[in-house]
Amino acid sequence: MTDGTSSYDVVGLGNAIVDVLSEAEDTLLQRLDLAKGTMTLVDETRMNSLYGSMAAAIESSGGSAANTLAAVAGLGGDAAYIGKVQSDQLGEIFRHDIRATGVSFETEPLKEGPATARCLVFVTPDAQRTMATYLGACVELGPDDVDEAVIKGSKITYMEGYLWDRPKAKEAFLKAARVAHDAGRQVALSLSDPFCVDRWRTEFLDLIDGHVDIVIANEAEIMSLYQVDDFDKAVGEVALHCSLAALTRSDKGSVIVTPESRHVIPAAPVSKVVDTTGAGDLYAAGLLYGLTHNMPLPEAGTLAGLVAAEVLTRYGARIDHSLVPLVEQARAA
Amino acid sequence: MTDGTSSYDVVGLGNAIVDVLSEAEDTLLQRLDLAKGTMTLVDETRMNSLYGSMAAAIESSGGSAANTLAAVAGLGGDAAYIGKVQSDQLGEIFRHDIRATGVSFETEPLKEGPATARCLVFVTPDAQRTMATYLGACVELGPDDVDEAVIKGSKITYMEGYLWDRPKAKEAFLKAARVAHDAGRQVALSLSDPFCVDRWRTEFLDLIDGHVDIVIANEAEIMSLYQVDDFDKAVGEVALHCSLAALTRSDKGSVIVTPESRHVIPAAPVSKVVDTTGAGDLYAAGLLYGLTHNMPLPEAGTLAGLVAAEVLTRYGARIDHSLVPLVEQARAA
Repeated sequence: MTDGTSSYDVVGLGNAIVDVLSEAEDTLLQRLDLAKGTMTLVDETRMNSLYGSMAAAIESSGGSAANTLAAVAGLGGDAAYIGKVQSDQLGEIFRHDIRATGVSFETEPLKEGPATARCLVFVTPDAQRTMATYLGACVELGPDDVDEAVIKGSKITYMEGYLWDRPKAKEAFLKAARVAHDAGRQVALSLSDPFCVDRWRTEFLDLIDGHVDIVIANEAEIMSLYQVDDFDKAVGEVALHCSLAALTRSDKGSVIVTPESRHVIPAAPVSKVVDTTGAGDLYAAGLLYGLTHNMPLPEAGTLAGLVAAEVLTRYGARIDHSLVPLVEQARAA
Repeated sequence: MTDGTSSYDVVGLGNAIVDVLSEAEDTLLQRLDLAKGTMTLVDETRMNSLYGSMAAAIESSGGSAANTLAAVAGLGGDAAYIGKVQSDQLGEIFRHDIRATGVSFETEPLKEGPATARCLVFVTPDAQRTMATYLGACVELGPDDVDEAVIKGSKITYMEGYLWDRPKAKEAFLKAARVAHDAGRQVALSLSDPFCVDRWRTEFLDLIDGHVDIVIANEAEIMSLYQVDDFDKAVGEVALHCSLAALTRSDKGSVIVTPESRHVIPAAPVSKVVDTTGAGDLYAAGLLYGLTHNMPLPEAGTLAGLVAAEVLTRYGARIDHSLVPLVEQARAA
């Protein structure tokens, strides 16, 4: 739902990925040597081998920031996305799905080279998801893909920590942050997962100090970032280094932290958790929508929790109906 | 779950298709000029145009006979499938999924030419599905793809009426029927959909007389075949032309007809119908499993109804867990 003037609430940069979801028993994860609940990067050979051991699956567009932007659009926000696919069938699927949700997506696809990225998602009976990602075409996302007009025209530029795994994407990230700040805009970062934080701790700390206004993370990620064993210590640390942090704690809800304030937001009730895929991504969507629509912080946090709860009750990380009623629900809460 | 000796309960021939499912309002179907509840064949241009109007979707392996065979395997039966895909990403997905359910699938994929077939499935709020199918690589399925050893080694050779839409597939069908009968095996035909029956009525009548032992159809299809306006008249007709017919009637259950007997099978209870995609395919699976496992006809019909009910409560035409408990339930009924 863009107005054709490159003016958006949120633009997101991320790895453009098609998810391949199937149910799996814990014993399969052990046999495949996958660490439960985490995301592992794999090469094409390992991906094919894991896929060969996977049950019959369903495919749906994914990618952490892409899931977030699709939900920002579902909430009625103006959203754009920057990410790299190949000119192949999965790339077509990715492009179709994100555009169909109303997100502007104009990044030029590759014409040759690696295939569109895939994430094998193993959902265990406890609703946890364990992921193996083949980045494929995503490794070619670079500074040239960062459309300066879109970044300048967006209230918030949102980036997933996963981008840090590839040198060219990292350059794209830094360019986008610079362009956004030069235009007086804000930059938000999701820490993505605890292993990603482990891989890039020192760089993430510098990044947050120098280039990031808003940090979104879960409890494990923020504690890993500051290498503390206590959530409150992590809250104290993060408050010194950014203008806003939103920290999620599963069924304990979330905490929104600024240098001046802390807001504890209870978790939204969930009837039955089916699959945790996308919960963090959709929390981010609610928060970013709230921040770009003048919601007070507790209201933005409530909306974030409601959107996250919505995705927990279903299989996959995209929601195919309008999320607008949740905005009303958050305002009324 | 094959034993490596080309010995199967059921081998199926069909159009190997990847389904692209999304929710849709009735107004969208009207705008796209799609006849609700039916399957329309479309060319690549029309498929792309329809896809452009479709909401964000999920992809899952489909194909009428392929869905049936996957469920035969899910029930614990030995199953094989013959169908044509391209060597592309969707073809890989199709091959992975059917093999992952335990079905033997060895048909050589195309190396060039049309892409793997896609079926755009629009699911309306009343749980009905409206389909537009681009046959793609399926049009190249021909007699050379019919593995005689597999047909000879299978108790029943099962074919979908949809095959009749393409000349080469029709030849493959007739070859498979001849090989099966020469080996003293049975041939089953699903009438697929009322429009398919309309397109091929005269040929289907000849086919059933000359080459088919078991007919599987729903009420609309069998009444269309015999051009009668009364279900009982259709039952009387079909009993004259095959050794067994299984006729489904949605919430009125099904009727199993032989020249000597009629068995009325009540519908299995369904909590909430989410999506009717695959209900006919899965009814066929239960029936074929029962017929190849010495079940009395009423018990086979009960199992067929239970398997169909299972798929009605979920989105899509494949079931990702074991169906073995339904066999016990049918035996105990």
